[in-house]
Parts: sequence; structure tokens; C-alpha cells
Amino acid sequence: MGAFPIFASRRIRTTPFTERVEASKLSSYTVYNHMLLPTSFASLEEDCAHLKKHVQIWDVSGQRQVQISGPDAHELVMKLSARDISHAKPGKCYYAPITDGRGMMLNDPVILCLDKDKYWLSIADSDIALWAAGIAEGLQMKVDIYEPDISPLAIQGPKSNDVMAELFGDEIRSLKFFNFGYFNWRGHDLVIGRSGFSKQGGFEIYLHDTALGTILWDDLWDIGKDHEMRAGCPSIIERIEGGLLSYGNDMTRNDTPLECGLENYVNLESDHDFIGKSALKNQAAEGIKKHLVGVKISGSPITPLSNTLACRQDNREVGKVTSGCYSPDFKSNLGIAMLDKSISASSEPIDILIGDEWRKAETAPIPFA
Amino acid sequence: MGAFPIFASRRIRTTPFTERVEASKLSSYTVYNHMLLPTSFASLEEDCAHLKKHVQIWDVSGQRQVQISGPDAHELVMKLSARDISHAKPGKCYYAPITDGRGMMLNDPVILCLDKDKYWLSIADSDIALWAAGIAEGLQMKVDIYEPDISPLAIQGPKSNDVMAELFGDEIRSLKFFNFGYFNWRGHDLVIGRSGFSKQGGFEIYLHDTALGTILWDDLWDIGKDHEMRAGCPSIIERIEGGLLSYGNDMTRNDTPLECGLENYVNLESDHDFIGKSALKNQAAEGIKKHLVGVKISGSPITPLSNTLACRQDNREVGKVTSGCYSPDFKSNLGIAMLDKSISASSEPIDILIGDEWRKAETAPIPFA
Repeated sequence: MGAFPIFASRRIRTTPFTERVEASKLSSYTVYNHMLLPTSFASLEEDCAHLKKHVQIWDVSGQRQVQISGPDAHELVMKLSARDISHAKPGKCYYAPITDGRGMMLNDPVILCLDKDKYWLSIADSDIALWAAGIAEGLQMKVDIYEPDISPLAIQGPKSNDVMAELFGDEIRSLKFFNFGYFNWRGHDLVIGRSGFSKQGGFEIYLHDTALGTILWDDLWDIGKDHEMRAGCPSIIERIEGGLLSYGNDMTRNDTPLECGLENYVNLESDHDFIGKSALKNQAAEGIKKHLVGVKISGSPITPLSNTLACRQDNREVGKVTSGCYSPDFKSNLGIAMLDKSISASSEPIDILIGDEWRKAETAPIPFA
Repeated sequence: MGAFPIFASRRIRTTPFTERVEASKLSSYTVYNHMLLPTSFASLEEDCAHLKKHVQIWDVSGQRQVQISGPDAHELVMKLSARDISHAKPGKCYYAPITDGRGMMLNDPVILCLDKDKYWLSIADSDIALWAAGIAEGLQMKVDIYEPDISPLAIQGPKSNDVMAELFGDEIRSLKFFNFGYFNWRGHDLVIGRSGFSKQGGFEIYLHDTALGTILWDDLWDIGKDHEMRAGCPSIIERIEGGLLSYGNDMTRNDTPLECGLENYVNLESDHDFIGKSALKNQAAEGIKKHLVGVKISGSPITPLSNTLACRQDNREVGKVTSGCYSPDFKSNLGIAMLDKSISASSEPIDILIGDEWRKAETAPIPFA
């Protein structure tokens, strides 16, 4: 696909931070949960290098929260989550695949346990509120499900501790990975977690009121000036290098969490019952037929994909590349590919179709090392 | 929001026609059901004028089909549809609101009855497959729900009959509005309906195989040369003039179909039972508090909205504009607004906030006349 602008409409929602983002050398958008999500600023390469060295402020409002509360909230969330979170504690975040009755991936949210009967599902790009509400409607469960006015703003990168401590106090430094707490800001209790879609460390601030967006951004920006902070966004280069999977790209409704290498987040042996469990137990018993593998693609730098790329070995179709980019640090094109189980991270090279050209590619474990 | 390009990714799906669309003077995209949807070519005004006079070919692949089939398909579709389609017949299309348990709009698909136990929901922009699958999962219904490889291609405008007859035969001229049939093309039976998101007349071809996209486009394009055919897309100007509502813009999950003026498609009195019915019966009994009204906004031409516009009367908040554009034919800015029930199509003028400026606006019935 070519480079065409996004047409304005209410349906593609702006965020509390859109004005600031657009004034910060934004160069492209995507749409995520019916909302604008920044995808590049200076350039993919420069954004990535800066993220690894300094600190960035990310408008990730598109990670919408599906709030599930009420007497049956715990039971419903347990039904939705392939991961057993029966012992979920307030203040903890849980990465959890959601699967349909056939065990296929519907989303891979981070679930925040706010209370025994109140959860946020911080979702990837699919309308999980509709899935959850449909299940609840069918089972006549006593729950309230909606999308509150919560817009995550992430601070990511090695200097994120310093920026956050300056605004929210030194106690935020001791917040543990995938924990969240409540931190005072201008009289508001903000939910802040140590999390984010990068491997560089950082925080996600769950802003609860659109009207406060530019004030929060500006407070962080003012502090950031002394830390070389820039506006940024999830980096396709950094996430592929680090093996962070993207729902809709590397995982779709045609894939199971076992095929996506998420077996550590799928509890098949415990008493934990969830939608898709029996299908996944069958698949686990029979063995998966495909899986995600890293690929290093030879030749000149590639640009991010608008479609999958065909993969072959000895003229046999062996799968497809689901994400790809050029990594300056690895001095190579890197990709994530859904390949036949016969192809492992240490297999003989495969061939990948880029345009009209079949290129050699080595397989590799993800994250890349 | 400003004009920023869409970033390529597999998650934002291309269509079978993307290559041809981009080669046809495309100027902007939106994202619809996780897929690229063209939104302008020459200019909004020129596209609209051409549509009203000639014929256009529209890539509306983003109108994805949710296929529901199996022994309980009829029962499930009836539960989903606020409109009583118990007497649905194969070959007929039905416009039908889908509501949640509180009677709020989730989507407004055109439902195609393919057979007593097989339906396509040709959806607006929300993941209705997840809602339908959630309900079916909760109720343990025997249905198969998925998104087949079906991509609608629309032929719209006054000359559409001539173009279609040339490719599919003269019998297509007698296809009635909101009926569909099977028409042979290169050995394939294509589902073609007389329908489309314009008031200019036309057809929607439900192409069943991505690989055939450019062949179908080219066949139509070759015929179109003699009819001044251009590539086009749903026209925001023409749809607002004609009162065609857009889900996500004029209708959201905060609105009921009664508030959206869709009472003719909501069967509250018959035996028809559907999700949201009791909430809507209550609302019908109590009376709605807001409704959609047309507005003619004074002053210089406006550009399409990225957010709603505040409305006041005598300094009292009375609602918001949900869609708007400048109409060359009406020589006025036209909008659709969700306003307090106290404001009717023949009320005193209201004030609408455009940027920092409060402008006078007359209310009017929709469609505009």
C-alpha cells in the first residue's frame, strides 16, 4: 500500500493527547480500537535508537480498557482468560490470551485487577467488550461491562524512572514490573503501572479524564526537557527485536496461543476452566502444526509489511512472515514468521518472497539475540 | 486532526482491490473493520458531483460479512436483530439494528438471507462476529460464525444499470431494491444485490475470492470507460444530504435505535424477541430524550469533523453535531446532530461551535430537501 492520509471522522477517535502528538513531529498514524495511534515521528530507525537511549512519551490511548465489574466479574474474567488468574490480587497486572470456543486468539490484553470484583482488560485491537458482553448476555451474568474514559499514556526508555519520580515522587521507583499503584497528581489518584510495549522499561499512566490530557502531557514534557525526552510510540523495530508479538499481525483468529508460543500463559492442567480450553487441550495432546519463529532476511532493507510474505523451503510452502523491518542494531532485516513445526529456530535457511524476489533467510529464536 | 499517512501493517488489511484503487487517484483512506476503505479521490465535492451524474466503482471490502450458519442460525440472527425477520426469504436483504442488553446500538448491518439456516451480516465498523460468537457461546447454540473471504465491490450512480447489464446480462436490470441474486461471471456465481451506501442507485457485488479482485475490477473498468466511470467511495456529502447514517459517527453505543430514528426497523409490538427489546420497550413507553436532526450551519464551508461539535440554544447545551460537511448543491454546510428532544426539525435556530466560533444553524428534517 502507498502513503495516504487518514480521513477525519468521529468514528476514528482522537485521543486526549492528539493535539500534542501532532505538534511533536508526528509522521504517521495507525488506527487501533477505532482510535488514532501514532506510529512514527522522525523515522523508524531514529525513533528506535532514541527510545533505547533516552525516554519517550507515548500516546497509547488506543489500548482501551474494558471494565468488567459486579458480582460475577471474577467468574466472567476467569472464563475469558486462558491464564489462571483465580488468585489475582489488586495492584497486579496479568498478560493473558483470550480465546474463542475453538481456542483461537481473540486478543491478548493485560488484565489489571482493581478489586476482587473489578477488572480492566487493557486490550489489543479487537472489540473484546462485545465478546465479553455477548458471553455475559448469553449466561445472564451479573456484570457491568463498558469502556470507561481511560487513556493510557506511556513513559518508556531507560530514563523513565527519573522522569516519573520527578512528577510522582521517588516511591514510584520501587514499583515492581507488572504491578500498578495509585499516585497523586494535581489532586487526582492516577493508576500507574510498570509496564509498556517495549523492552526498555517504563510506565503506563491510565489517565481517567480526557479533559486532563494536555495538562498531564505538558507536566511530563516540562520535566522531560532535562532528560532528552521525545514524543514516541511503540517501535516496530524494537518490538520485533525483542519478540513482542502484535495481535492482528503475528497472531490472529486463525492462530492459537500455543502456536504463538504463549503456553506459559495458558493453564491447561489446573482446574481453571476457560472458553477454548478443551480445544487447546486437544491441540496440546496432538501437538501444534505451526509456530512463530524469528527470521533474518538477507538483502537490502525492507519496509514494514502491509501483507504477509510467503515462505518456502526446497520449493515447499512452509508458512508466512507476519511482521518485518530493518534493524540497524542487528544490521539485518528481522521478521516474525508463522512456520510449519518442521522449521525450527535452527533449521536450514528458508526462502522469503519480497516483491518478486525470493530472498534467503536464516531462522532464529525470538527474541533475537 | 491533521493529515498524516496510515502506517502499513498486516493488522490494517488491504483488500482485493487495493492495488487498483491506489492507481485510480486515491487521496485518502479510513480504516473500517480493520481494513482499508477509500474516502476520497479527486476531492469530496468533485467525487460527489460525479457520483450523482455518472457511475462509480467502490471498494467497500471493509463491509465485512459475518456468516452465521447451522441449525441454530435463524434463532441466533433473530436474537441479534431488532427487526423481526422471522419471515426472511432467501434472496432478500434486511437493514437491521443490532442492540445490546440495554438497547444500545452495536451495529446496523444489512442482513442477507442466503438460506433458512445461513445468513450474512454485512456489517458497519464493529466486531459483530465477536458479539454473535459470545452470545452463541453463552447459550451453547449450534452455529458456525466466521468471516468468509467476501469483499463487496459496489457499482453506484445513475449509469450503474448500464454498466452492470453489460457485464452480467440484461436480467440484472430487473433485480429489485434490497434483493440479491446469483449472476454468472467467468464461471463463478457471484452474489449481487441492488443496494449500496448512496441514494443514487446501484449494486453491491459480493466477491468470494481475493485472488479474483483485480480481474473483476478490470472487467468492470473496461466497460466503465464508455460510461465515464471513475473510482469512488461512499460520499460524505451525498450521504449527509440523503440522511444515510454512519455507525460510529451518527450512532454509537451511547445511542438507541429509537434515538437514531430507526423505529421502523425495531419490532417492539410483535412476538419477536431480541436482545435489548425490554430496554427499548421501556424507552418507547417513557419517550426518548434525544434524537437525530438535520442542521444547516451558516458561514464558510466546514471540513469533515474529527470530533463532535457542541450545540446550544439560548446558552443551554442541547446536544452535538455528529457528522458535517459542505454541500455544493445545497450551497450550505449540512450536518446531522443528536439533539435534545425539545429541539425539532422546525425549531428556532441553534448555535454550533466550530473552532472558537459559535455559528448560527437552522434545524431541518433528514434527508435534507
